Amino acid sequence: MKLEKNQLLNLLSFFRIVCNLKTIKRSGWIHKSKITSPESVADHSYSMCMMSMILAEIINLDSGHIMKMVLIHDLAESLVGDHMPDDISSEKKQLVEDKAMKKIISKLPNSLRKNYLNIWNEYNDNITVNAKFVHNMDKLEMVLQAKEYEFEGYPKELLQPFIKSATDYISNERFDLVFKIMQAINDDSKRI
Amino acid sequence: MKLEKNQLLNLLSFFRIVCNLKTIKRSGWIHKSKITSPESVADHSYSMCMMSMILAEIINLDSGHIMKMVLIHDLAESLVGDHMPDDISSEKKQLVEDKAMKKIISKLPNSLRKNYLNIWNEYNDNITVNAKFVHNMDKLEMVLQAKEYEFEGYPKELLQPFIKSATDYISNERFDLVFKIMQAINDDSKRI
Repeated sequence: MKLEKNQLLNLLSFFRIVCNLKTIKRSGWIHKSKITSPESVADHSYSMCMMSMILAEIINLDSGHIMKMVLIHDLAESLVGDHMPDDISSEKKQLVEDKAMKKIISKLPNSLRKNYLNIWNEYNDNITVNAKFVHNMDKLEMVLQAKEYEFEGYPKELLQPFIKSATDYISNERFDLVFKIMQAINDDSKRI
Repeated sequence: MKLEKNQLLNLLSFFRIVCNLKTIKRSGWIHKSKITSPESVADHSYSMCMMSMILAEIINLDSGHIMKMVLIHDLAESLVGDHMPDDISSEKKQLVEDKAMKKIISKLPNSLRKNYLNIWNEYNDNITVNAKFVHNMDKLEMVLQAKEYEFEGYPKELLQPFIKSATDYISNERFDLVFKIMQAINDDSKRI
């Protein structure tokens, strides 16, 4: 595929939006756990992508498709920020992020747009096994990071709500391996 | 595949090493560009993975394989840090990182190890088209970030060496689209 000048500039604009995700801090840690300089959304997405790649292979899911879903799942936050549930209703958040994501995807070459829009919609509809797996991995990665912050000395009681909500979420789902790893994280009391 | 207790704990140890990459700062920006709190290696890997996914699809390379290579390409730095060429010779760096990477990969379930070891070796040998593409993407992502730091107001003269070395590298390679995007980054003078 040969790209015209304006397609190239649009693609560059897409990459800048991706790059900007490094500067968006995961706001839950700031507002609820008093961590002043927490991980970025890009940090979280990296770790979640690697974990998803490995676990998807172990349980025979489509790791390539899942990695793509993980990479884009929080990309809208590059334009709209990482809102807390207290700032904004989940319906409003969904609308704002959907609008941002459509704008972001429109910067890709025409032939790629439909696939990424489908992956984004699949993630949000949360009906397919792949989408459910990615939502579970989002929670699992959060538990892992919460535990790391606990090891670093941040107050346990300010991290517990994150661990509790993720534990409840993962416990209600069907991914046995994800559940077992979450248990191992919760049971483990020493660092690497 | 069913994992035994010790395999589960090894996998958790692998995930912690991945998670720790969020805390490793890209040292080049600190030492050469006086940026006190730069992106993490995880940030860089996230952005590079997304860019690689999109460009690999446009030029019909195997995006799944390439994404895996990108995710692991700097993972050894979680254990050994991001050394500058002045700290350590490139041969020594290669040895240290190879040893660390073998340790990291040994934490994966047996059935996955060989594949990731092959991908790691393929990246280092830098002979295949996929490996060459990933090395190019490493440079392209660095140029994009350098330009972002320039827009943020960091001194141009301290960022120029990164842009120059990456430009030289990419100019000598065969990926026309990567070269064109690098040109677009260098020519562009306004932010998103």
